[in-house]
Parts: sequence; structure tokens; C-alpha cells
Amino acid sequence: MEHGLDVGALFLAFAAALVGAKLFGELAERLGQPAVLGELLAGVILGPSVIGLVPLSDAVLELAEIGVVLLLFEVGLETDLGELARVGAPAIAVALAGMLLPFVGGYAITLALGYPTLTATFVGAALTATSIGITARVLSELQVLATREGQIILGAAVVDDVLGLIVLAIVSKVAGGGQVGAATIVKSAALAIGFVVAALVVGIPLGHRLMRVVERTKVRGVLGALSVAFALLVAWAAKAAESAPIVGAFAAGMALARTNRRHDIDHALKPVVDIFAPVFFVYVGAEVDVRMLNPAVADNRPALILGLLLTVIGFLGKFAAGFCAWGKVRRAFIGAGMVPRGEVGLIFASVGLSTKALPEPVFVSVLVAVFLTTFVAPPLLKLLRPAPTPVPTLVR
Amino acid sequence: MEHGLDVGALFLAFAAALVGAKLFGELAERLGQPAVLGELLAGVILGPSVIGLVPLSDAVLELAEIGVVLLLFEVGLETDLGELARVGAPAIAVALAGMLLPFVGGYAITLALGYPTLTATFVGAALTATSIGITARVLSELQVLATREGQIILGAAVVDDVLGLIVLAIVSKVAGGGQVGAATIVKSAALAIGFVVAALVVGIPLGHRLMRVVERTKVRGVLGALSVAFALLVAWAAKAAESAPIVGAFAAGMALARTNRRHDIDHALKPVVDIFAPVFFVYVGAEVDVRMLNPAVADNRPALILGLLLTVIGFLGKFAAGFCAWGKVRRAFIGAGMVPRGEVGLIFASVGLSTKALPEPVFVSVLVAVFLTTFVAPPLLKLLRPAPTPVPTLVR
Repeated sequence: MEHGLDVGALFLAFAAALVGAKLFGELAERLGQPAVLGELLAGVILGPSVIGLVPLSDAVLELAEIGVVLLLFEVGLETDLGELARVGAPAIAVALAGMLLPFVGGYAITLALGYPTLTATFVGAALTATSIGITARVLSELQVLATREGQIILGAAVVDDVLGLIVLAIVSKVAGGGQVGAATIVKSAALAIGFVVAALVVGIPLGHRLMRVVERTKVRGVLGALSVAFALLVAWAAKAAESAPIVGAFAAGMALARTNRRHDIDHALKPVVDIFAPVFFVYVGAEVDVRMLNPAVADNRPALILGLLLTVIGFLGKFAAGFCAWGKVRRAFIGAGMVPRGEVGLIFASVGLSTKALPEPVFVSVLVAVFLTTFVAPPLLKLLRPAPTPVPTLVR
Repeated sequence: MEHGLDVGALFLAFAAALVGAKLFGELAERLGQPAVLGELLAGVILGPSVIGLVPLSDAVLELAEIGVVLLLFEVGLETDLGELARVGAPAIAVALAGMLLPFVGGYAITLALGYPTLTATFVGAALTATSIGITARVLSELQVLATREGQIILGAAVVDDVLGLIVLAIVSKVAGGGQVGAATIVKSAALAIGFVVAALVVGIPLGHRLMRVVERTKVRGVLGALSVAFALLVAWAAKAAESAPIVGAFAAGMALARTNRRHDIDHALKPVVDIFAPVFFVYVGAEVDVRMLNPAVADNRPALILGLLLTVIGFLGKFAAGFCAWGKVRRAFIGAGMVPRGEVGLIFASVGLSTKALPEPVFVSVLVAVFLTTFVAPPLLKLLRPAPTPVPTLVR
């Protein structure tokens, strides 16, 4: 039963990721920082560019992907669809401003530095999407997921993940030399937005029915296993519909949140998320190649400078977008919550590199911006946070 | 972040395995059979030879391997080392008889049918090792893990997994054309047995220390994450020491069972095992190629007949071994508990195939024997079971 999978290497990497995540998470917390920051740092140190205990292998990626899908499923379970709908309009405003500003800024600066239009387009696009995974995790740690600010951030992050994937589909087509008309854009948009709506319209009644089936079973562990299966299926469907698995998992969670077993599912899911979600954050950290970040190496400097400029643009663009929210909310907190880039930004960067739209140094600059925004946001959020809600938080 | 891993395919297969496992597990239970039998059947149906929803890919194997390691870790957590030591002598007697009888029988019949000595050696060896995973799961479902019979079966299964791996090391060397002297055998044996002893000697004080560290931490989910990390590390060490990861995970569980947090760890681990262990049983089932089992195809018949003969030998050899136990125990139950072959038998078969020691039809015969013994044992155990113990069972 051993094929190409190196079971020993997998177990060692998994164990190292767990120990590192908890050790640095604890350290971060003792220094007054969110634990997720420690987990990202653990990844940088354990990753291939420093110690190399956690390789960027398919086997580790698999754990990370399961972790982030289960995390978003649990965030969805904690999300009140009614509350999210109430913040819909400000969330969409924040999302749109938060995509437009960094895109225009990133595009302009790259073009100004003499790069071609295609490169500038990719750079701008890579700065558009907020990381739902990191944002949700920090909000949950700060116990503000259920606040109005938390809901606006989450809603805006979902909207801009969905829109980010549309942008990706379009720029990929441009990079491949294809023609992009208004029809393609409308079709991509309809598909992505349609998926979330369809997942909820189909998922909510299906969730109720699933709970009725679970009630009639005798074998143990059915609730947890079938809930996870439900999340995985919607995540798979999201990917098949050219949206992101994490958006699907989030929709699946929101659907099951409307059943009478919401808290039981949360209870069964929590220990699983505790073990797999940290691997995702460690994996993201491990993708940082510290050698490329050494400013003493002259060759690294242009990429680092562009990276810092993109970080500033990426930061200010999203932070300013927070002020597009209205109502009695702490707008600076919302802006800070939108700052971290993650999964989608990294996908943009790697597609850009593989299609040669991004030259290697510019690829590094984008990575720098993705990571710096991610590292800057958690302490900033902690600083700006509104009063925590009394609802016990279930996700970490 | 997408490398070679097909995330969509992984999620679909994972979801299908969970739904199939719970559906057929429920069906099996309603028919008065252990749920694990349903999970194996679900695997046969979902596997590549029938529906093909669960491929035998590295990605699915990874979930299965994590599942079986966590399952054995939890079985170890429920195992009282003192009790296991008390049944040590009869367990070793059962293990030795249960290896010798099927080996000699399988060797003799294969030789009698005109196959070369090397093939006969592999066939005999493949019949020696009881599947701890399946056995432990059935014992746990029947709530007899803590009975004297349960402890003897478990102890004997561990012993013969350890010895089985020694035999594998030796026959692999023979198949590779190497010379095997007494020194090699003694060295392999010392290494394998030494590992379990070392894991316990080092693991027990380490476990106590780990719990003291956990008590001082503030971040949540530390107990579950670090316990799993501990199990993964010992599993990795077992593999590095040329023993089996599942033996390491079992030893890790026994070590942590002696700490004051035993029940908390069990509680945190249970939902994780609920989700991953079924994937292991589905994977094992999926390895059955039903096309080779069709007796209407004349070409399949010789392999099927040899397979049935090996099943009978494999069954009688292990069943008889149960009667080597002494004390006030139900010997037939112990014999039945030793019958299922699994992981190690499959490893023998695949090593035999790849080194050409086993011709393809004989490989199929060995698979038939491995699977039939596995399918026969659960209902037989249910029929013969002693009175369940009052201790609540924690593993499924």
C-alpha cells in the first residue's frame, strides 16, 4: 500500500507543523499577538528555506487544503446568514473599493517602473483579494466574528474572493493571448456569484434533510462525518464551477448553521479544525523563501523595493476601503481586517509566473506584498478591535 | 498553491468515502453485522473496479494512512499496559502459533501446486500477520477491547505485526537474491522488538513531561494537537526503525494512556478518528478488483481456487492458534480475532508482485485470502463474543 507516498516524511512534516504552530502560537500570544501570526512564523522557520522540516510537497499541501476548507466550513457555521445579508450593502461597497484601489495602485506603479501592461495587470490583480482564511481566524481569536464589523469584513472578503476568481479567469485568458470581451466577463461573474446563491438555495433545504437522516442512524460519528462530507462536496462543486473550494466550504457552513444541530456539528468539528487548520498557516509561512528577502544581496534589492511599494499600496488601498462602510461601525478596524492577502494572491502570483506574465523578480515582489500584508494585519486588528461579543467563539 | 495535487478530486473522493462508509456501516449494523464490514464493502463498491469514485491515489492513501495511525493511537490510549503485560505469555504463544501454522500451510500448498520455493515462501509469509486495525476496530465496536480475550488478541496482533515485519525484511532480501544468515535474522528481530520497548521506555516519561508543558500553555487546542504530533512522531520513528507506523502509533497511545490527561486526549481525538478511520477501511475495500473475482471467466479460476485454499488455511491456522491461549478465556473468540489479515498481508503481496516472486495470478490468490479472512472475521467475532465490559468504548 505504499505507491509514491512517503508516509514517514508525511508524518514527520505533520508533527513538525503541529509542534511548531503550537509553540510559536503560544509565544505570539504571550507577546500579546494573535496565535496565527506565530503559526505563520513557524512555517517560515520550518519551511524549505530555513530548517526544511515542512516541505512544500503535495502531501503537506493536502493537509493544508483540508485544514483551510474545514476552517472556512466552521466559520460558515458561525455565520448568521440574516446578519450577513443585513451588512450586505456596506460589505459589497468595502469589497469593491478594496479591489479597485489596490488594483489601480499596483498597476500604475508597475507600469511606472517600466514593466509591460500584462505584468502590471497581474500585479494589480494579485493585490485585490483579501485572505478569508487568515481574516476569519484572527477575527475569531479576537472574538469579534459576530460583531457588525466582523460580519462586514467577512462578507466583503467573501465577495472579493468571488470577484478575485473572476479577475483571475480574465487575466489568465489575457496572459494566454486570448481575446476578452464583455460577454466573457459577464459569464465568469454570473457563474461565480451564481454558485454561492445556488449553494445556499440548494444547501439549506438539503442540510435540514441531512439532519433528519442523521437522526435516524444508529452507527456513531455520523453527524461529524456527514457534515464534513457535505462541506467537502460543496467545496468540490465550487471548484468544479470555477469558484474557490473555500468559498464553497463557507457556503456549506452557512447552510448547516440554519439546522437544529448547528452546535453539535461545531462541537464535533472543533478538534478536527484544531489539528488541521494550523497546517494551512504553517504551509503559507513555509512558502516564504527567506534567501530572496536578504537586502544585503544587491540582486534582491529591486524586487524588495517594488515589494515594499506594493505592500504600502496594498495596505492603504484596503485600509481606505474600510471607510466605505457606513453605520455605527469602527471603520479603521474594517479596513485593517481587509488587509491580509493570502491564498488567492498566491494563486495569482504562481499563475503569473508560470504564464511568464510575471518575471521572477516581480513574482518575488508580489510574494513580499502578500506576506507583509498578512503579517501586519493581525497585530493591527488586535490594536483596533471593538468590544468582543459575548457569544463564545468556536473557531480558531 | 496547486502543484500536482488535484484538490477537487481529493475532496470528492473524501466525501464519497465518508458517505459510503456511514451508509454501508449503518446497513451492516441494521443487519446485525459490525459497521466496519459495511465500510469495507463501501470501499469495494466505490473503488476503481466498480464505481471509481474513490481512486487508489496517493491523495486518498494519505487520508487512509492518517486514519489508521490515529485509530491505532486511540486503541493504544485505551490499552492498559499492565493488563497487556499480564496477558503477555499467552499472547506470544497465540502469535507464534498463528504465524507458524498459516506459514507452513500456505508454503506447502503452493509448493504442492508446482510453484517455486520463493513463491511459496512469499505466499506463506503473506498469511502470517493479523490486521491490528480491523481487529481493534471490531473489538472496540463489540465493546470487548478491555476483556482478557480482547487484550490477548491485541497483544498477539501487535507481536505478530512486529514479527511479520521481520519476516518481510528477510523474504525481501531472499527475493532480491541476497544471502540470509542467522545474524541478519537476529538483528532484524532485535531492532523490531527493541523499538516497541524503547518507545515505551522513552515515551512514558516523555508523555508525563508533555502533559506538564500542555498545562502551562494558553493557546487553545494544544492538548489534541500535541498528542497527535506525539503519535505521528513515534509512528515516523517506527518507520525509520523499519517497524510499522501503526505499531509506533499504538505504542504512543499506550505511553499517553499512563498520563493524567488520558480521557481528555481520547475526547479530543474521537471526532478526528470518526472522520479519518473510515477512509482507511474504504481504501482497503477499494483495493479489491472485482473483475478478477468473477468465476465465470475461466482464466480467473486457478487463482480463485488457490485463493480459497489459502483462505481456508489462513482461517484454520489462526483459529487453531487461539487455542494456544490459557486461563479462563474463550479460546474460539481469540482464534476468530486473529483471523483478519490486512495491511501487512497486502504489503507482502505487493512486494512479492514487484520483485516478481509472486506471479500475477498468485498475487490475486493472496489478495483473495487477505480479503476473505477480513470479511469473515467480523460476523464470526460478533457470534462468539464474550460478555462486554462496562468500560465505555472510545474508538470506532
